[in-house]
Amino acid sequence: MSTLTDELIARLRSGDRRAAARAISIVEDEATGSTDLVRALYPHVGRARRVGITGPPGAGKSTLVQAIALELRGRGQTVGVVAVDPTSPFTGGALLGDRIRMDKVATDPGVFIRSMASRGSLGGLSRKATEAADVLDAFGRDWILMETVGVGQSEVDVARAADTTVVVFSPEAGDGVQAMKAGLMEIAEVFCVNKSDREGADRLVRDLEGALELLPRRGWVPPVVRTVAQTGQGVPDLLAAVEKHRDAIEKSGELTTRRLSRARSRIREIVDDRVLRSTWSGREQELEALAGRVVRGETTPYAAADEILKK
Amino acid sequence: MSTLTDELIARLRSGDRRAAARAISIVEDEATGSTDLVRALYPHVGRARRVGITGPPGAGKSTLVQAIALELRGRGQTVGVVAVDPTSPFTGGALLGDRIRMDKVATDPGVFIRSMASRGSLGGLSRKATEAADVLDAFGRDWILMETVGVGQSEVDVARAADTTVVVFSPEAGDGVQAMKAGLMEIAEVFCVNKSDREGADRLVRDLEGALELLPRRGWVPPVVRTVAQTGQGVPDLLAAVEKHRDAIEKSGELTTRRLSRARSRIREIVDDRVLRSTWSGREQELEALAGRVVRGETTPYAAADEILKK
Repeated sequence: MSTLTDELIARLRSGDRRAAARAISIVEDEATGSTDLVRALYPHVGRARRVGITGPPGAGKSTLVQAIALELRGRGQTVGVVAVDPTSPFTGGALLGDRIRMDKVATDPGVFIRSMASRGSLGGLSRKATEAADVLDAFGRDWILMETVGVGQSEVDVARAADTTVVVFSPEAGDGVQAMKAGLMEIAEVFCVNKSDREGADRLVRDLEGALELLPRRGWVPPVVRTVAQTGQGVPDLLAAVEKHRDAIEKSGELTTRRLSRARSRIREIVDDRVLRSTWSGREQELEALAGRVVRGETTPYAAADEILKK
Repeated sequence: MSTLTDELIARLRSGDRRAAARAISIVEDEATGSTDLVRALYPHVGRARRVGITGPPGAGKSTLVQAIALELRGRGQTVGVVAVDPTSPFTGGALLGDRIRMDKVATDPGVFIRSMASRGSLGGLSRKATEAADVLDAFGRDWILMETVGVGQSEVDVARAADTTVVVFSPEAGDGVQAMKAGLMEIAEVFCVNKSDREGADRLVRDLEGALELLPRRGWVPPVVRTVAQTGQGVPDLLAAVEKHRDAIEKSGELTTRRLSRARSRIREIVDDRVLRSTWSGREQELEALAGRVVRGETTPYAAADEILKK
């Protein structure tokens, strides 16, 4: 392990915000030393409560994250936020609009907010978001809120990395939400009907409760909590539901099962990454030449793969 | 190669719809013989025009796909549709609501429609969707329309597998669309403003054209085409734009570049798949035991990975 990593970890552990920001940049950019860093973080990770906040665009997730952070701050707890934004796969630029709305908590040193952009691979993104959460865990945050837009595999991965996943809907989100619900119903441990002062909230609550009855029971039954994130209304109830869920999975052994599954995925990722790196190292030209032959109809991708694997 | 595969390919090539359905099921389920099948398809693939249709939920993609299929049928062309639905990562069930609306074309033997469900991995899904398109290509379809919901990496992958990617928006889709636009702007080769008879269509067209001016020019400038998929209005213009794009990339050499990139990804996928399969084969118990030690704090995921890789 390098001295630079040791120094960064020491600064992080002493509560240096710039060290936290720097450490997240290192994992986000997969910069030199990122593997060392994640490895060195490991002994300091595991204390924070991790909550995933997901849902369709427009449900008010960022405002809700802000409201939860405010509530937790009122209880003297520190908060880290990792926000995974929809983003261009080519430019890597995150949309910061939602972040701007978080100004109420952005100036509070007890709240650390970080937006992450996707650079090509959403799979990689969920790993990086988890590593950013590890940084904030080692940094000593009591709670880590992981906000994602609710469609696709990366949400599922982020949900798996959280102790409790809150799925947020709002009454007015319309047609598209229907299409997104199916995938989200199954990862929700707590449902949140946000903007619940608006028309259609009662129907949405009934819809969700109805849909829940159709799901197979697996011990914990996800409650449906109403919030108005703008005013903070319902947020204590939401946190109570989150804490109740965490207690329930601790008692049932589910928490251990999840930790096992998380450890398994982590080991797998590290092994896969190394194996593939060594498989492809220095073989770009060979791949290029084989691709050319495939395009010219001289070989098939399968025969080309055989050639790569022969060596 | 097995005789069963040969037989299936022969039936597929003779225009047997059940053979096409069976072949897609094999690639979708990664059933025994799926690798053989994809390999055997290869010599028969490459004739069809492939168009990706993507956009946010509620933009009317399915109706548009139907309208395009109707228009192409009117020109005597055959059509294959591969629809990738949002779906539960745990149940694997596709939402069939949108499919039902496609009844106008569903009974036409010149149109072959297949919905695909995600079973856990969206990365795998885009590969399977591409393979399903290969099946329909070998089946002799003139056009293949690949419909995906527009958020995330799988759309980008599907877009890369198409000759032309159409990104569909509708005026009324609201807030959430803004968040999704960024990633979609960059993969669009043709923009379609659907439901263009509704309020807000002019503004959306202006917004898109404004946003396009901000993007770096890379030869082809994506046109913005208005459609009303319900009535078929604008669909011939849309197809004209698609054909113009295809001609442009053929002339500029971009089509070859894409084919090279596709061949490269395909070879990579096959190699990665085989390498990881052989790495993990028969090591589930070892992984399980190491995960247990990680959870008990006796080792770290990195040291565990080292142990796996040592052998």
